[in-house]
Amino acid sequence: MSGPDPGAKTVDEFDWIQRCLIPLAAGSPGALGLLDDAAIIPARPGFDLVLSKDAIVSGVHFLPDDPLDEVARKLLRVNLSDLAAKGAEPYAYMLAIAWPPSADWPAREAFARGLGEDQRRFGLTLLGGDTVSTLGPLTASLTIFGYVPSGRLVPRGGARPGDLVLVSGTIGDGALGLQAAQGRLAGLDQADLDWLAGRYRRPEPRLNLRPALRDHVHAAADVSDGLVADAGRLAIASGLALELDLAAMPLSPPARRWLALQPDPVAARLALATGGDDYEVICTAALDEAQPLCEAASTVGTPLTVIGCVTTGQGVVTRHGREALSVARAGYRHS
Amino acid sequence: MSGPDPGAKTVDEFDWIQRCLIPLAAGSPGALGLLDDAAIIPARPGFDLVLSKDAIVSGVHFLPDDPLDEVARKLLRVNLSDLAAKGAEPYAYMLAIAWPPSADWPAREAFARGLGEDQRRFGLTLLGGDTVSTLGPLTASLTIFGYVPSGRLVPRGGARPGDLVLVSGTIGDGALGLQAAQGRLAGLDQADLDWLAGRYRRPEPRLNLRPALRDHVHAAADVSDGLVADAGRLAIASGLALELDLAAMPLSPPARRWLALQPDPVAARLALATGGDDYEVICTAALDEAQPLCEAASTVGTPLTVIGCVTTGQGVVTRHGREALSVARAGYRHS
Repeated sequence: MSGPDPGAKTVDEFDWIQRCLIPLAAGSPGALGLLDDAAIIPARPGFDLVLSKDAIVSGVHFLPDDPLDEVARKLLRVNLSDLAAKGAEPYAYMLAIAWPPSADWPAREAFARGLGEDQRRFGLTLLGGDTVSTLGPLTASLTIFGYVPSGRLVPRGGARPGDLVLVSGTIGDGALGLQAAQGRLAGLDQADLDWLAGRYRRPEPRLNLRPALRDHVHAAADVSDGLVADAGRLAIASGLALELDLAAMPLSPPARRWLALQPDPVAARLALATGGDDYEVICTAALDEAQPLCEAASTVGTPLTVIGCVTTGQGVVTRHGREALSVARAGYRHS
Repeated sequence: MSGPDPGAKTVDEFDWIQRCLIPLAAGSPGALGLLDDAAIIPARPGFDLVLSKDAIVSGVHFLPDDPLDEVARKLLRVNLSDLAAKGAEPYAYMLAIAWPPSADWPAREAFARGLGEDQRRFGLTLLGGDTVSTLGPLTASLTIFGYVPSGRLVPRGGARPGDLVLVSGTIGDGALGLQAAQGRLAGLDQADLDWLAGRYRRPEPRLNLRPALRDHVHAAADVSDGLVADAGRLAIASGLALELDLAAMPLSPPARRWLALQPDPVAARLALATGGDDYEVICTAALDEAQPLCEAASTVGTPLTVIGCVTTGQGVVTRHGREALSVARAGYRHS
């Protein structure tokens, strides 16, 4: 069988499915070899199926010249990040993708390669989907499926007054990384710029936190649209208020070096807290659960940091140490 | 609470979700009120979950000036059509939608209204999803969930040599309806044009055929990309050949009137067989199952017509009575 013309301007969908997608479905009997319009997930007694769906658009959620294997990885990872925050184990995914005319064979191959590498790494397989064409920007949507033991999903709306608020890893790298990737970040050396751009392009879903979250927290969500915005959604879903101390917000060494260059460090911390693309986990836990929670998180190599507390009231209150802050705009909304 | 500004050029996503989408999720406890990033489907022992996903792009899968309530209905219905062909009972759906800047409040309200009316009619609810913005055309993707008793999914690849090939309803109305909607169909009166455009805009998923399909057929698929193209996929998935007699292809009265005006009726039938947007069901059944199958189908008001047979070999062979036809182009591919 001869290969497709690598210079072909139009790609035969059947070829692409045959050569690039069917191998991604190899581990899913329920994918029916992608030969059907439908896929099956058999009942798994004792487990709830957890679903999440994220869509990305070129020029909005990624840069038009980002390598497509990285774009595919990010699409998979932002969905895995949702599962991680819910305490769910990855199982499989469905993919819909609208290709613009400029998407030639190497572009599609790169996209499938990125999916393939990350699905092996994170232990899930392709179940099915739809591939169509568009005259607009590349647009893709992924529905991800995971499992939690029945009734054990970690909810966004479960916070209780008096809980501590904690966040995983470091905040602000994604927002700085976007600027680094666009060549708009001044004052840092190339190693820092590359590291930050990598955090933007290839977020690390915090799947290793799943047992700790299931065992110790009341509420959790992933931080994708900015710490303050996602804290706000957790507050709304819980019908309570979250007080966050931005002085306690954990920062990476490159972010600290960037912060040291800023004329107004408080405003700069606020920018990091509203920047988005972190893909960390925000959660709330009772006082007496915070220590075992943090120990469990450190054991798996993803430390949690206490950044605030849950109070009666509504919305998010931010402060920097003792100084109250007003958030003019609570997080960049991708929408 | 005052309403949003109906003339607003930018729509607040939160408002849209709150007012238009949350009501659509009211019947799904697993939607968690759309307050979470995730949704749950509890295990249902004895049943397989059936999934399908279809994406649509403005200007490719629907006309840019189609009313958005009709676009939403069609998106739901084309996915329901996949479930129907698999013998699956509708349960719920996830929605991803990328809105262009031109999509104002009335546009979004219309979209949600179309979904709401049809989900009530077909008995399913919204589970979750993602709403983003795009500078390109309106793009939406829907993942649908249904149930079949364990192991009872009707496969695309189950045809056997000697099976009869049957199709539901009538073929070609969708393709003629698209032309009617674009004002490109000559010679028919307004009632016929309106009826055909309706068939294009609002396909009827053949859910009432589910028991008949589950009980009597070996293989089934929905006819969405043209009878010949979808017969071809069924043939490939089954590793066999399908012989279709286009003279036997069932036509609606308006399609018959259109056919009577065509200089070459055989070429015209071939155009209808490769036109797409039918959303009928093609299936194959053993000779001795064909009669109970057709009776069961007639009983529910969606007759099936025998249009061919399954043979050893590969692909699709079309003929018109005794005359062999060559299909230059096997179905319009939307891709």
